[in-house]
Amino acid sequence: MNNDPGRLAQQIDFILEIDKLKQVIRRSYLVDASRRENTAEHSWHLAMMALLLCEHANEAVDPGRVMKMVLVHDIVEIDAGDTYLHDPVGALDKAEREQAAAERLFGLLPADQGRELRQLWQEFEARQTAEARFANALDRLMPLLHNLHSGGRTWWEHNITRSQVVDRVQHIGQGSETLWAYAQTIIAQAVELGYLRPE
Amino acid sequence: MNNDPGRLAQQIDFILEIDKLKQVIRRSYLVDASRRENTAEHSWHLAMMALLLCEHANEAVDPGRVMKMVLVHDIVEIDAGDTYLHDPVGALDKAEREQAAAERLFGLLPADQGRELRQLWQEFEARQTAEARFANALDRLMPLLHNLHSGGRTWWEHNITRSQVVDRVQHIGQGSETLWAYAQTIIAQAVELGYLRPE
Repeated sequence: MNNDPGRLAQQIDFILEIDKLKQVIRRSYLVDASRRENTAEHSWHLAMMALLLCEHANEAVDPGRVMKMVLVHDIVEIDAGDTYLHDPVGALDKAEREQAAAERLFGLLPADQGRELRQLWQEFEARQTAEARFANALDRLMPLLHNLHSGGRTWWEHNITRSQVVDRVQHIGQGSETLWAYAQTIIAQAVELGYLRPE
Repeated sequence: MNNDPGRLAQQIDFILEIDKLKQVIRRSYLVDASRRENTAEHSWHLAMMALLLCEHANEAVDPGRVMKMVLVHDIVEIDAGDTYLHDPVGALDKAEREQAAAERLFGLLPADQGRELRQLWQEFEARQTAEARFANALDRLMPLLHNLHSGGRTWWEHNITRSQVVDRVQHIGQGSETLWAYAQTIIAQAVELGYLRPE
């Protein structure tokens, strides 16, 4: 038990601040296409994937670490916004915007916890550990599922081709060959259904 | 690695199905009071609380288990709906509705995983383990925070008194005396600000 009231106050300030992630809107639609999803609910959905799919990772992974990583990986979007996977302009200063966001947001926490969350986020971004490779695989698989089941709406809206998608999601295979094989069946189906331009 | 395609198909079916949790609307408002929150984003928010606050639990808890429990604890609401804490009529058949929901939803998964998630949910509901007591403490503390910071809107709308709130949230202390002490300061503040009727 920890009885330092200043420490708890910092933790609660951070918890209140990250409520804003519920207002960051992604490009992806809900599975029923009724509206776009926000980053907080997306993070929950990914954590559920982590809870269920770790058995498909190429290397043994610690499911708890994967779960933590996906819960935390998009918190920087509160300040930096969501950068669409197929947005070359947004990509230019994405790293810079997200660094500043991490500084401010994780800086609200007690130093040890701020460091821990920052490290989880950096680990996710760097894709150098088994957990990070698998967490990234989940993060790339999810929009494919959403697109396939909502009529390919995001792809149509942005005029996306098959090879653009393959280019951005093929590193799923670094985390899980099984999920990459599955992702390829989704892409093939999406082309066949006319959701994705063949080239 | 698990290569049974039927198993992965079941897991993906479940993942697509639980997207519906993003459309279950709770009574609580976002911290900025702009709209009501949904149960998926609430579950993410609770998981972040679990990641940060386990050091305040009365007994040593496994943070990973607390995290899993809060991620899963409200999935039954997809079929059963959200039952407001201060709704005596809804409470009458809540258990029955949620049992049927658990049957159907967790039944979509491979048997071993369906069993695991069902057990996590039942453990949460029964409050008999240290992890379940702490997870429940977080689940009761969160709406207090939301209410205090959104002008007590849910309390006003439902004409709630101080003693009604104390009655429903005092078991926070079973999970964490520190968080219960903190919750009491929130309740006192809410009465003082006129957000909560004194009696």
